[in-house]
Amino acid sequence: MATYVHRFADGGKDDKDLLGGKGANLAEMVKIGLPVPPGFTITTEACRAYMRDGVVPPELRVEVTMAVREIEDAFGRQLGDVRDPLLVSVRSGAKFSMPGMMETVLNVGLNDASVRGLAEMAGDERFAWDSYRRLVQMFGRTVLGLDGDLFADALDTLKAERGVTSDVDLTADDLRGLVATYKALVLEHSGREFPQHPREQLDMAIEAVLDSWNTDRARLYRRRERIPDALGTAVNVCTMVFGNLGEDSGTGVCFTRDPATGHSGVYGDYLPNAQGEDVVAGIRNTFPLAHLEELDPTSYRELLAAMRKLETHYRDLCDIEFTIERGKLWLLQTRVGKRTAAAAFRVATQLVDEHLITLDEAISRTTGEQLTQLMFPQFDRSGETTLLTRAMAASPGAAVGEIVLDNAQAEARAAEGASVILVRRETNPDDLPGMVVAAGVLTARGGKTSHAAVVARGMGICAVVGADKLDVDLTAREVRVDGQVLRPGDVIAIDGSTGEVFLGEVPVMDSPVMRYLSDGLDAGLAAAPDDATRELVVAVDRILEHADSVRTMEVRANADSADDALRARARGAQGIGLCRTEHQFLGERRHFVEAVVLAESDEEREAALADLLPLQRGDFVGLLEAMDGLPTTIRLIDPPLHEFLPDLTELSVKVALAERDGGADPRDVKILGAVRRMHEQNPMLGLRGVRLGLKIPGLFALQIRAVAEATVELRERGFDPRPEIMVPLVGSVREMHLVREEALGILTEIGRGSGHLLDLPVGCMIELPRAALTAHRIAEEADFFSFGTNDLTQTTWGMSRDDVEGAFFHDYLDNGVLTISPFETIDALGVGALVRVGVEGGRSTKPELKIGVCGEHGGDPESIRFFQGAGLDYVSCSPFRVPVARLEAARAAVEAGGDATL
Amino acid sequence: MATYVHRFADGGKDDKDLLGGKGANLAEMVKIGLPVPPGFTITTEACRAYMRDGVVPPELRVEVTMAVREIEDAFGRQLGDVRDPLLVSVRSGAKFSMPGMMETVLNVGLNDASVRGLAEMAGDERFAWDSYRRLVQMFGRTVLGLDGDLFADALDTLKAERGVTSDVDLTADDLRGLVATYKALVLEHSGREFPQHPREQLDMAIEAVLDSWNTDRARLYRRRERIPDALGTAVNVCTMVFGNLGEDSGTGVCFTRDPATGHSGVYGDYLPNAQGEDVVAGIRNTFPLAHLEELDPTSYRELLAAMRKLETHYRDLCDIEFTIERGKLWLLQTRVGKRTAAAAFRVATQLVDEHLITLDEAISRTTGEQLTQLMFPQFDRSGETTLLTRAMAASPGAAVGEIVLDNAQAEARAAEGASVILVRRETNPDDLPGMVVAAGVLTARGGKTSHAAVVARGMGICAVVGADKLDVDLTAREVRVDGQVLRPGDVIAIDGSTGEVFLGEVPVMDSPVMRYLSDGLDAGLAAAPDDATRELVVAVDRILEHADSVRTMEVRANADSADDALRARARGAQGIGLCRTEHQFLGERRHFVEAVVLAESDEEREAALADLLPLQRGDFVGLLEAMDGLPTTIRLIDPPLHEFLPDLTELSVKVALAERDGGADPRDVKILGAVRRMHEQNPMLGLRGVRLGLKIPGLFALQIRAVAEATVELRERGFDPRPEIMVPLVGSVREMHLVREEALGILTEIGRGSGHLLDLPVGCMIELPRAALTAHRIAEEADFFSFGTNDLTQTTWGMSRDDVEGAFFHDYLDNGVLTISPFETIDALGVGALVRVGVEGGRSTKPELKIGVCGEHGGDPESIRFFQGAGLDYVSCSPFRVPVARLEAARAAVEAGGDATL
Repeated sequence: MATYVHRFADGGKDDKDLLGGKGANLAEMVKIGLPVPPGFTITTEACRAYMRDGVVPPELRVEVTMAVREIEDAFGRQLGDVRDPLLVSVRSGAKFSMPGMMETVLNVGLNDASVRGLAEMAGDERFAWDSYRRLVQMFGRTVLGLDGDLFADALDTLKAERGVTSDVDLTADDLRGLVATYKALVLEHSGREFPQHPREQLDMAIEAVLDSWNTDRARLYRRRERIPDALGTAVNVCTMVFGNLGEDSGTGVCFTRDPATGHSGVYGDYLPNAQGEDVVAGIRNTFPLAHLEELDPTSYRELLAAMRKLETHYRDLCDIEFTIERGKLWLLQTRVGKRTAAAAFRVATQLVDEHLITLDEAISRTTGEQLTQLMFPQFDRSGETTLLTRAMAASPGAAVGEIVLDNAQAEARAAEGASVILVRRETNPDDLPGMVVAAGVLTARGGKTSHAAVVARGMGICAVVGADKLDVDLTAREVRVDGQVLRPGDVIAIDGSTGEVFLGEVPVMDSPVMRYLSDGLDAGLAAAPDDATRELVVAVDRILEHADSVRTMEVRANADSADDALRARARGAQGIGLCRTEHQFLGERRHFVEAVVLAESDEEREAALADLLPLQRGDFVGLLEAMDGLPTTIRLIDPPLHEFLPDLTELSVKVALAERDGGADPRDVKILGAVRRMHEQNPMLGLRGVRLGLKIPGLFALQIRAVAEATVELRERGFDPRPEIMVPLVGSVREMHLVREEALGILTEIGRGSGHLLDLPVGCMIELPRAALTAHRIAEEADFFSFGTNDLTQTTWGMSRDDVEGAFFHDYLDNGVLTISPFETIDALGVGALVRVGVEGGRSTKPELKIGVCGEHGGDPESIRFFQGAGLDYVSCSPFRVPVARLEAARAAVEAGGDATL
Repeated sequence: MATYVHRFADGGKDDKDLLGGKGANLAEMVKIGLPVPPGFTITTEACRAYMRDGVVPPELRVEVTMAVREIEDAFGRQLGDVRDPLLVSVRSGAKFSMPGMMETVLNVGLNDASVRGLAEMAGDERFAWDSYRRLVQMFGRTVLGLDGDLFADALDTLKAERGVTSDVDLTADDLRGLVATYKALVLEHSGREFPQHPREQLDMAIEAVLDSWNTDRARLYRRRERIPDALGTAVNVCTMVFGNLGEDSGTGVCFTRDPATGHSGVYGDYLPNAQGEDVVAGIRNTFPLAHLEELDPTSYRELLAAMRKLETHYRDLCDIEFTIERGKLWLLQTRVGKRTAAAAFRVATQLVDEHLITLDEAISRTTGEQLTQLMFPQFDRSGETTLLTRAMAASPGAAVGEIVLDNAQAEARAAEGASVILVRRETNPDDLPGMVVAAGVLTARGGKTSHAAVVARGMGICAVVGADKLDVDLTAREVRVDGQVLRPGDVIAIDGSTGEVFLGEVPVMDSPVMRYLSDGLDAGLAAAPDDATRELVVAVDRILEHADSVRTMEVRANADSADDALRARARGAQGIGLCRTEHQFLGERRHFVEAVVLAESDEEREAALADLLPLQRGDFVGLLEAMDGLPTTIRLIDPPLHEFLPDLTELSVKVALAERDGGADPRDVKILGAVRRMHEQNPMLGLRGVRLGLKIPGLFALQIRAVAEATVELRERGFDPRPEIMVPLVGSVREMHLVREEALGILTEIGRGSGHLLDLPVGCMIELPRAALTAHRIAEEADFFSFGTNDLTQTTWGMSRDDVEGAFFHDYLDNGVLTISPFETIDALGVGALVRVGVEGGRSTKPELKIGVCGEHGGDPESIRFFQGAGLDYVSCSPFRVPVARLEAARAAVEAGGDATL
């Protein structure tokens, strides 16, 4: 028989699977001798049995009886006692925090009889009836499922009758009457009496908490946070203690260090003669924690000792909820405290300096996501600002610009050089053109996974979403916020890291951390406005330096130009993992490629290619010079043919109209013919990558020749260029063989001609399922592999990125098929399985085969952890994400090491 | 040390890997005591060593010396002997026949001295000089690589000088002079003398045969036939025997049964006083084999005995090459004989009746491809026909129609109801519209893998390609054949099974085998014009009946209508594996779907769906009635959204022009808006299948409801409908869960309402890599799997079918990346790996999970063998291919059984 009930004394902080987070930490506090009110935890196993069978396991009732009796004996009070009743709270507590998602019932045990005992015990009749009133209200709403407004309205009515505005002005009699009203409401709307038997209250409250695990909003929340539904919640039943029994009582929240800034030293709030609810409701102003020292020095010292004990024990910043009942300190909850990004870095290095944790652990305590937040530009808040509203921070950064309300406006003003912020009720794929040119996006609706949020993060522009005070009126062409009216052209500033929206200009500055990352420690320190920021910059430096020493995966960058390469190198990139050569084709040199694609004879094509050679060579010279001494992976041309050609529909319309008007441009007609001939239904699955290279004679040869000649030129100038040639979209070993033969021929020829040994590695992308499945064969012809997980995701799921994000991504988030875009974080189960197959296959043929990843997943924390597990040698990401990848790769290595975390 | 040389006595027919086909069969004949001229085989291992090292292994020369001396001793003649020289032939012989691809040198051992000994021994000086002349000619061309025309021209010049037209009119002196001329040509063009030393001749000839393995054309041939390059060829060195030493000599080819018709009884040709070359050259008319009985009854009886021995030994039809040298019979080659499709079936059942093979073996001796050939309509050849030309049979069938030269003509005449044959120099993707409406295609260029051939086979229309006598003149708009001029509108008839092209009408008739398959044995027998065909129909019936009893995979059909279903059922289908419901949407009811897709409110959509319900239900009633009692898999709607909508480009042009002319149709404008909004870059990777079903509320529900209501209706009418609901394009278990929940809800509701238990299976397609990779999870929610290998091939390779076949399939055949379209035969290495993963995954969750395949691979013989190996329960193919699949599934089962083949 499973044991469904654990006393707080039976467990510890590592039992979160069974006891939930709150229960495990309560047990831990009991274990280390801190004052916790007696209580017990009903395990997640009980919840899982309940979900499976649809009824509470019968053993549970027996075990609850045993546990309650133990508390009664220990505390000397009994549930339902008419003189000095035991009251308990019933709270949910899952393994992972789900704030606000699940239910709590306080004051269980009060009834028409015991309310009198409580009054007597407390010496405060008003307190007792207020407690009873709260129980009936909470019970009605939570356990019986009644509309909370019923109770709120009755309270308002009563206050109106009494001519008071605050709850505290109601008398004991008022509250006794309110209890009667509430009980009548319960009977009327639920069809049953409010249960008088304390044990019935307790059982119903437990069941209600268990039920709250499976409400729609809890399930939705879990899907989005990727918390498995099967975990279940624990239920904590805890003796009530009261902070509102007079001036020698009170309640508070404290932190062992400042979670906002990371300052060392305790931090918190205290409210005398109050309950936790009152702190949350913000009815009265709290005092800083130090105030407690004056009020109750004994309890204060006891609390400081408990905080120190907890921080030493948890070896991390803790947050604590506590209550003082008539001079006796009780700790109600603790956990490792949430903190801002800056605090994370500062606290981690402080703890290292205090010899509480190692640098390896410090790495585990900071995340790439936090580092990213520190890298975005930020508002200079030293001047005056006018806050318009505050909403959800959806894509970090700081943007200032004119309000624009649609694509046309956005494009027109951006074309005139204005910085614009697109303001919409919500966005959809039609708004993309406007988003592309905007500095930021502000929407009135939607959450962190709304279209605006997802697309803005993808494009790296700043976004604030769900600003529900915003009224975007497209008819009047104005935006109203709290009565204030804004019009297109008015300047606003949005902070995508905090969710703030300001009226007017706010100066934007580079973050000191970014200055440090780009230009070194001295520059970072110089940019820091205060000591706290200087400490932060030093903390980031120490952690990244250590990260570089512990990680086992290299970090490279995806960069197509010398400028990008230099930027990436400054931020710690150890090479280029992907240089996309087609960008060089698609830019100003498009006309050449049109000539190549449209060439009508071998001679025309060869001439056009010959013209391109010096230009490509020049590009590679710049890139390889920037990356002197570091590996630089150059991918041969990849995109679908149609990207080099005008749009079929646009050109068809243009030619048709011109013909109607007396004759189209013959060049247009010729191009239209080519576009029609080469039109593909599904260009992503068509003529691209190695297919294009094998079909158009001389195309890959031109690029390989340019790489080889650039290498020779740089060597002769005393540099150490290290290009690696990468073949895209390989699906079979023979494709690789053909390109490799061609490449080796050209390298040998140019090597002989120049007197340099050109033994450049020739490898390939693994970006098709077939490449992963036949990697053991492809490895025979490849010097290295690089996973292209963007394309691999597209083909494994059979979803193109544009189409999924345009057409049905949101439906799929809503219905739970996806919890995050598989293009953002690697789909470990499907795409990841192919990555593993590819690594195993490649290394079965060449045990030392170098394998990396150069899709956008290379900069995503969770994906980086996956790649570490899959045994990759390097990740390659955008220059911006390089520091993030350095940190995350180190965290993954430390995790993989296994013994560095508690 | 490897032994590179095997005497003919050291081996047997199972040693084809080492000795090649010819060598192994020669060894077998020696083993069973048949008269084979002494000789030896140089193994394929020697060839592989030669390919690896670039030189002939030194041991080989020693071993050849030993073997030659043994022959000399056995035969009492010596190489190069001036009195009675030993002459040998040097012939290639790979494991798999590569007709005409590799080289042969005869009469090795003749030189200026031994030619006189040969003359003396033969008593025929002309014969000796002619033999020598042939050696120099063959050696010059094959071994020294000279242009064959040099020798042919010299011979023509000599004949002109002598005023004769035939070689046989040249005298011994003429030929002696010709030898001198040939030797001078060798010296002039190769820079070296014709080698006089016989051993040098032999060594050079052996090396030339080894080299011929790696000529471009041999490699190309192997790639197309999928013969690995690494096999290498064996080389057979065999004592020359001469059939041209007088009237008591001769040569012939014979078969143990008629390979054309399958008639039992020996069959062959004989030519007295001649060599094999003469038979091939067709200079003189051969006699039927029976003629030999009159000329040389002893040899004839000996030959008959040898044939019987071979057929008994090989237990199959054998073909034999033989030579009689002065009354002594020598067998020069044997092999299991190639035969026509009709002969294959007749011979197989004859051998069963003669108790030489079992019915299981008879199944292995016939192929689905042969059965297909017997199923196509054929020309009634009883009347007069005018043969225009004969070219390559590229796609079987018989078609009669008017010549059309381009798409416009084809479409115009087809629209008027004419049957048309598209005649082109060659075809490319631009010709598709014309091909779609044509009854057949005829091209002047290209081979069996040309665009015309591949596309025609894919579309199931008849094609003859590579008719090089055809001159297609688009300027003059005429087609010239041997001086005859044809114009559009002229009627021709093409036979895609024989490659014949006829002028004018030729009546087409159903094949008797097809009549049998469609309407039963009596109908087939009634349609057969003669006893041979009646025997054939019976043979097919016996073999298919046995096939049905031995195969372990079910055969179902892909059918969308009741008519197709009935046709498939008549041909033996045991169910429907795929009913595509979108065809019902795309037809005349398109306007409904436009309403669904374009609906602007829930009400509009629901109303449109409600209108569709009775129509879909009617379709399903028809289908399920036709398949009464058999499983009928109905796939929910699958194709990309754009297939329901007008083409974006066409509509854009139409609206733009209309607007220029004063205003577009508002409905067009509205539709254009929807088309633009829903336009996808890669519709194959976009909103389709289950994604569409989850996005558009009520769409799948409508279809499921129609299936359920049709089931209830039929049950109430006393039928036994067995629908299975199949969800397309599933990529994750949650998609399947959502649709399944919806389906079960509807089935329960309609079941309750009607009083019928509707426990219909709900399964899914496995057609995305991710579905295969996560099959273990998807199986939790699926009652069956059906592999959609078309889509799976597209995503695994990242190639859409249209695009690969249009843009680069031919390049890929030429460069050897592909040897066959992966859409025709399953790519076992890549796509096949996913099929295996999917089967393993599915069965790991549900060991009894029913798994089939419904892609077009379901009707392809090689793919069917793969599916048997992968453990599938059924294959589903087009109704036409059902008999083929029945036979091939049986062959695969027999092969898998392992003990039924020799």
